[in-house]
Amino acid sequence: MALDSSKTTDFKYVGTRPDRPDGLDKVTGRAKFGADATAPGMLFAAIKRSPHAHAKILKIDASKALAMDGVKAVVTRADFAEGLTGETWNVLENVMAGETALYDGHAVAAVAATSALIARDAMKAIEVEYELLPHVTDVDKAMAADAPVIRAGAADASVPEGLHPNVVRYYESGHGDVEAGFAEADLVIEDHFTTEATHQGYIEPHACLGTLGADGKGELWCCTQGHWNVQKLCAAMLGIETSQLRVTASEIGGGFGGKTTIFIEPVALALSRKANRPVKLVMTRAEVFRASGPTSSTSMDVKIGMKSDGTITAAQGTFRLQGGAFPGGPCEMTAMCAFAPYNLTNVHQVGYDVMTNRPKQAAYRAPGSPMAAFAVESVIDELCNQLGLDPFEVRLKNASREGTRASFGPKWPRIGLVETLEAARAHPHYTAPLKEGQGRGISCGFWFNHGGETSVSLAMSEDGSAQIMVGTPDIGGSRASMALMAAEVLGIPYENIRCTIADTSSLGYNEISHGSRVTYASGLATIKAAEAAVEELCRRAAAKWDIPEEAVYWEDGYAKPSGPNAGDHAPLHITELTADMGATGGPINGHFEATPEGAGVSFATHIVDAEVDPETGATKVVRYTVVQDAGKAIHPTYVEGQFQGGAAQGIGWALNEEYIYGEDGRLQNAGFLDYRIPVASDLPFIDTVIVEVPNPGHPFGVRGVGETSICPPLAAIANAVSNAVGVRMRQLPMRPSRVLEALESKDG
Amino acid sequence: MALDSSKTTDFKYVGTRPDRPDGLDKVTGRAKFGADATAPGMLFAAIKRSPHAHAKILKIDASKALAMDGVKAVVTRADFAEGLTGETWNVLENVMAGETALYDGHAVAAVAATSALIARDAMKAIEVEYELLPHVTDVDKAMAADAPVIRAGAADASVPEGLHPNVVRYYESGHGDVEAGFAEADLVIEDHFTTEATHQGYIEPHACLGTLGADGKGELWCCTQGHWNVQKLCAAMLGIETSQLRVTASEIGGGFGGKTTIFIEPVALALSRKANRPVKLVMTRAEVFRASGPTSSTSMDVKIGMKSDGTITAAQGTFRLQGGAFPGGPCEMTAMCAFAPYNLTNVHQVGYDVMTNRPKQAAYRAPGSPMAAFAVESVIDELCNQLGLDPFEVRLKNASREGTRASFGPKWPRIGLVETLEAARAHPHYTAPLKEGQGRGISCGFWFNHGGETSVSLAMSEDGSAQIMVGTPDIGGSRASMALMAAEVLGIPYENIRCTIADTSSLGYNEISHGSRVTYASGLATIKAAEAAVEELCRRAAAKWDIPEEAVYWEDGYAKPSGPNAGDHAPLHITELTADMGATGGPINGHFEATPEGAGVSFATHIVDAEVDPETGATKVVRYTVVQDAGKAIHPTYVEGQFQGGAAQGIGWALNEEYIYGEDGRLQNAGFLDYRIPVASDLPFIDTVIVEVPNPGHPFGVRGVGETSICPPLAAIANAVSNAVGVRMRQLPMRPSRVLEALESKDG
Repeated sequence: MALDSSKTTDFKYVGTRPDRPDGLDKVTGRAKFGADATAPGMLFAAIKRSPHAHAKILKIDASKALAMDGVKAVVTRADFAEGLTGETWNVLENVMAGETALYDGHAVAAVAATSALIARDAMKAIEVEYELLPHVTDVDKAMAADAPVIRAGAADASVPEGLHPNVVRYYESGHGDVEAGFAEADLVIEDHFTTEATHQGYIEPHACLGTLGADGKGELWCCTQGHWNVQKLCAAMLGIETSQLRVTASEIGGGFGGKTTIFIEPVALALSRKANRPVKLVMTRAEVFRASGPTSSTSMDVKIGMKSDGTITAAQGTFRLQGGAFPGGPCEMTAMCAFAPYNLTNVHQVGYDVMTNRPKQAAYRAPGSPMAAFAVESVIDELCNQLGLDPFEVRLKNASREGTRASFGPKWPRIGLVETLEAARAHPHYTAPLKEGQGRGISCGFWFNHGGETSVSLAMSEDGSAQIMVGTPDIGGSRASMALMAAEVLGIPYENIRCTIADTSSLGYNEISHGSRVTYASGLATIKAAEAAVEELCRRAAAKWDIPEEAVYWEDGYAKPSGPNAGDHAPLHITELTADMGATGGPINGHFEATPEGAGVSFATHIVDAEVDPETGATKVVRYTVVQDAGKAIHPTYVEGQFQGGAAQGIGWALNEEYIYGEDGRLQNAGFLDYRIPVASDLPFIDTVIVEVPNPGHPFGVRGVGETSICPPLAAIANAVSNAVGVRMRQLPMRPSRVLEALESKDG
Repeated sequence: MALDSSKTTDFKYVGTRPDRPDGLDKVTGRAKFGADATAPGMLFAAIKRSPHAHAKILKIDASKALAMDGVKAVVTRADFAEGLTGETWNVLENVMAGETALYDGHAVAAVAATSALIARDAMKAIEVEYELLPHVTDVDKAMAADAPVIRAGAADASVPEGLHPNVVRYYESGHGDVEAGFAEADLVIEDHFTTEATHQGYIEPHACLGTLGADGKGELWCCTQGHWNVQKLCAAMLGIETSQLRVTASEIGGGFGGKTTIFIEPVALALSRKANRPVKLVMTRAEVFRASGPTSSTSMDVKIGMKSDGTITAAQGTFRLQGGAFPGGPCEMTAMCAFAPYNLTNVHQVGYDVMTNRPKQAAYRAPGSPMAAFAVESVIDELCNQLGLDPFEVRLKNASREGTRASFGPKWPRIGLVETLEAARAHPHYTAPLKEGQGRGISCGFWFNHGGETSVSLAMSEDGSAQIMVGTPDIGGSRASMALMAAEVLGIPYENIRCTIADTSSLGYNEISHGSRVTYASGLATIKAAEAAVEELCRRAAAKWDIPEEAVYWEDGYAKPSGPNAGDHAPLHITELTADMGATGGPINGHFEATPEGAGVSFATHIVDAEVDPETGATKVVRYTVVQDAGKAIHPTYVEGQFQGGAAQGIGWALNEEYIYGEDGRLQNAGFLDYRIPVASDLPFIDTVIVEVPNPGHPFGVRGVGETSICPPLAAIANAVSNAVGVRMRQLPMRPSRVLEALESKDG
C-alpha cells in the first residue's frame, strides 16, 4: 500500500496554533544556545583582527602571547589546509587571512587560553606587521577604472571582458525588445537607487565549542543555520574526513541567512587540535559587525515604460552589488527577482557582483530581492503617480499569473500574486483615511523558495508517541510545524510528538535552513516518513488479523480492516500496534531522503502608512499590513510571525540601518548604539493576512514564507515616505538627514 | 537489485585490528563519561538512604534540609507517578522506597542544592522515622517457613502452591526419566554448592544529568547500557510521554549488565522538575555497592549419573537464586544453562527466584550461567576423578552438537562446542607439567546470546566518507566493529567511517547493549543499512550510465557495469557518486530496523592452573587459557579482550569477591578496600584461542562473545583448586579461610 496523505482541506492538526515545543525552554532559560556549550578542560579563544582595510601581512609575532601564563596555543593561516578551491577557499580566506588582510576586522591570528580574559590579553599581545595597500569600500568606486585591484584573478567566466577585475560575477537575462517597448510607452521613467549594507542583527553572536584530536576526529557545537555545511567546510579546512567531524547545532538566537556560513568554527577546531583541549570561541558584537556577513550594498538603475492605461511596455534594470572582498554578492537573484511580479513582453536585467574591502557578504533573508523591489516598485509608484493611476490596478493589470512568462525565463506554475493584490486591495487599511504628513505606499515582492537536500527519520515509541529527526535548525518554529504535519498523518496528538534537530552524526545529509525551505522540504520529508511508518503499522495490523496488507487502511490513529474484512476485526489503535512492536517485527520507523524540486514560489503585497516629522526629518511607520501567499499555513501563528519579522527588519533597513565606512576604510558603527535597528517602540502592530494558494509540489500545499516577507518593505516604505514628503526617495536608509534634504530640495 | 554481502571468508577489513575510534579520546581524557555532563545553572543532588534492612517508613521530615541556603528541592516517592505495574513498578520501588525500606541503602528521599557539599549536608538533615521489621538476607533462610515475608503478593503464577511467599518465580524443564537414568549409572554424585552475590565492579559509578520542565519535556544524559530503556522507564515514572524525554548515553566506564536498568535517573528528573533547574546526580562507590544491582547469590543442588565409560545417564539440578527485595533473579537462565553443553537423554532442572532484604539484583554478564556451570562442572570433574576418566574425553563424548536436543528443549543448530573442546585439548597448556601445589581444572560454559530490537542508519557524506548511527552503547569496542563491517560492504577504508551512538531522539528504538547482542544485531543492521546505501549508489551509477540498475554491481568501493554494458563505462568510485548526490536524487542513506532472531549461541572451554599456598590458603591463578567460539571475530583484539575480561571477572568471583551482610542485615564491605576485585598483579596473562564456527544467522557469521567468557571460570578454577588441595570446593568464593578449612578437613 502506497499511502498518500496529500490534501489541502479537512485538516485536524495542521492549521491549529499549539504552543511551540521549545517555548518553555526559551522563556525559562533552559534552552542551550551556542555560548552555553561547555566541556571539561575547555579553553577560551580570541581572534586578532586587522585594523586596516587592506594591508599585506609582513610578519606575525606571537612570542609574547605564547609566553603568557595560561596561553595554550596560537594559530595562523599556516594551521589550516592548503590547496582548497572555489567557495571553500574563499570562506577559508575570510575565516583567517592569508598573505593579505582584506578588510577592517579580517582575522589574522587566534589564541586559546585558560580564561577568556587571558585570551583577550594574549590576543592584544600578538604583534602583526602590515604594509598598507590602497582600499575601496564603495561599489561604484570599486568598478571605476582607477580602483585598486583587491584580489586579481577572482573573477569567473561570466564576466565580460573590459570590466574592472573587482567585478567578479556577471548576470544578464531578459526577452523581447526593450527599446521597442520603451518607444511604445506613454511615459518612461529611469532612475538611480542606492541601498546600504545592513546586518541581519540576530540577537545571538556567533559562538562555538570545538574539540579536535590528533586522530582527526572532532566534535563541534555551534550556533548555525546548517550544521552539515559547517561540517563539510570545517573538515575541508582542517584536512580531515567529513564524517569524522560531528557537528551539533545549538538553539539559534536568530540567523536570517547570516548563519548559513562559518566565521569562527574552524579557528576553534584548529586551536583545539594544537592545544589538545576543547576550545570555546564567542564573537563580541563588534566582531559580529566587523567580520560576519552583512548583506550587499547596491547601486541600481531601473527604467520602465508605461502606457497611460497602466500597461507596462518595457522594463530594464542594472543592479550592482557590493559583496565584500570575496565573490558571492547575489547579483543573479537581485536581477531575477526585480521584475518577477510582472508579466512583461520586453524585459532586460543585468547584475554585477563587485568586490570591495569589506567583510564577505552573507545571505540576508531573500538575498538581493528587497533592494531590487525597492528600485522597481519605486519607479512603478512614480509612474502611477505621474499617470494618475491606482497602484493596485496597475499591478493587477500587469501581474504575473499561472502560465505567463517570468522575467527571467520560465513559465509560472500556479502562483498567488493576484490573490495577494486582491486581498490587500480589499483590506480596510487601503481605504483608511490618512492624516496630515502621512503617506501610503504599497509594493509587491517575490522570492523563489527552495527545496534542497533533505533527510528525515521518524521513530515510534512503544507508548505510541513519536519522534521526528530532522536536520534543519529550527529558525522559526519548524519543530512545531513538523509535529503538526506528522500528527496529521499519524493521527496522534501534537503533544505526543517530539521533533529533534539531529546532529550530523545522527542523520543523513541536510542542506542549510535557508531559502525558506524548511517547512516545505523537511515538512514534505516528515510527511513521507510518517507515511512510511503508517504503512508499517498497517502491515503489523494485517499480520495480526491475517489479512492482506492492502485490506488495511489508516484513519485518525487507527488501523482498520476494509472491504470483505471490514466487519471481522475491531480497529487497532496505534498504541496497540506499537506496544509489542519488538515482537511483531522490530522497531517501527519511517525514513525519507530526497532533493525535492517542487518548492512553490511566493509573492506578497504590503501596505504601509508612514508619517514624517517635517522639523526633524524623522519617519514613523504608523500602520503596516502584510498580505502574503503561504500556500498552506501549517502553524498560522508562526507564519504570521515570519510576516511580521520580515516587515520589521524591512522597516529598519528602509529607515535607519546602514554600515558606515570612513575614508580610512574602517567601520565606524560596529555596535547597536550606532547601528540602529528598530526597537518595539519604533514599530506599529504589524497586521497580517495569510493567503493560501496551495503549492502542488507539497502534499499539504506549503510554500516557504520566511523570505518573501522582507521583499516589499523597502519599496513600500519608500513609496509611503515619498508620498508623504512629495519627493521621490532614491537612497536608503531614509534617515532623518536624508528626509530633511528631500524636504529642502522640494522647498528649494 | 537486492544486495547480499554474506560471506565467511575473503574479508578485506573484517578480521583486521585497527585502533578503536574512541581510543585517543579515552587515553587523553577527552571522552565524556556520565559525570562529565554539565549544564548552565545545574544543581547537585544527594540521596537519603535507609540504614535498615527492613523498616516501615513512618515519616519523612525535610523541613530542616529545605531551610538550608542553596537547597532547591526535596523529592520522595510522592513525586513520582502512581499506578505503575510489572517490572516498571518494581524498578520504581527500588529507585525510591514507598511505604517500606526494603534493604540497607534503599533510597527514601533526595535533595538538590547548588553544590554537592550542600546537597550532602541537606541529605543528612532529612529526618526519617522508621519502624523496624524483621529481615532476611540469605536465600535458603528466605525460603524457610519461618522467614519474614518481604512483600506479600509479589509472586507470579509460575510459583507452585505451598512455597514461601518470598519465592516469586519458578522454572522447571527437562526430558526423559532421570530416576531411570540414575539407575543405569555406575556412579552417581549429588552435591550442594553455594555462591555469593558479586558486583560487576565497573569503574564508573552511575551518573546522570537530568532536566525536566513543567511542559513534560526533558533531557537526560547518563551512563547506561541502554538509553531507550532508560527513556521508557523514566517517562513512565515521571508520567510523561516517552517521546518527550531525550536520553543521551555517555561513554561508559564499564557496565557488564549492571547498567541495563536504572537507579538514580528518575530521581534527577523529579528533582529537576521541582527545582526548575538541571540536576546532576552521581553515586558514590558505597552507594554503588549498597544500592545498585549485584548478581544473585545461589544455593544449588546437582546430581549426575555416569557410566564407567564416561557416558552421562542422567542429570538433575535445583538452583535457588537470591534476587534482593524484588522479583528478577535469573532462575530460568541458570537452570537452562546448567546442562546446555551436554547431550542428555534424561535431564531435569528447577529454578527458584527468591526475595531477600537486599538490593535488587541486576544482570551480570551471562546472568545465572556461571553459577550453574560451577555446580554442574564441579560434579562432572568429580565424576571424572573418581572414575579415572579424562575430563576432555568425557565432555567430548557427551557434548551437545548440531541436531542434538538441548537440555531445555530445542534442537541445536550449528554450534561450536566440540571445536572449542578439541582446540583446548590440542593447546600446549593442557599438557604442560604442573608444579607442586598446583592443580588444573577445565570447564565448559554456555550462553544463549540475543538479537533484540535494533535500528541502524548509515549516511554518506559528499566526500565519500560514511557515518553509522547505532543505538547500542559501545561497551566493548563495537564502534570499531561496526565501522569494519560497513567498510567491508561499502569498500571504503575503516578510517573514513564514523560510528556514533545516537541518542533516543535521533534514531529508532534500540534494545539495551546486553545479551552479547551488539556485534550480532547492530552489526547485522549495519551491514543491511550499508547494503541499502550501496544499492542506492548503484542506482545513481545506472542513471549516470543510462543502463538498467540490475546491470550495475558493487566491488571494493566502485560501481561497475556488468553484462553487455561491461565495456561501455569506466567504474565509478564511491566519491564520484557521493560528490553530486544532491543533484542526482538527494542524500544517500541506508536504514535497517528489525528484531533479528538468528543470534547464534556460544560455547567456551577454559583451562586453568591454580596454585595454593598451604600456609595461608591463598590461591593464585598461574596460567589461564580461554577457548571460545566467536562465530566470526570482526575485530579479533576486542574479541580477545572480551575473553580475557570474562576470565578476569570470573577469577575475582571464584576467589575473593562477595557481598558480606551482618546479622543486622547491613552490608559490611561497601568499598573496594573490603570487596576485593582482582588487580593486575593478581592475574596471569590470559591466553586466548578464537574458534570460528560461523553463525548462519549473521551475514558474516558473528556470534556474541561478551558473556560466554564468564561462564566457565568459576567451575574451572574450582576444579583447579579442588585438584590442587585434594578436596572438592563447594562454596565460592574460595577465600583463604575456606581453602585452609578444606586443607584442615583433609588432614583431619
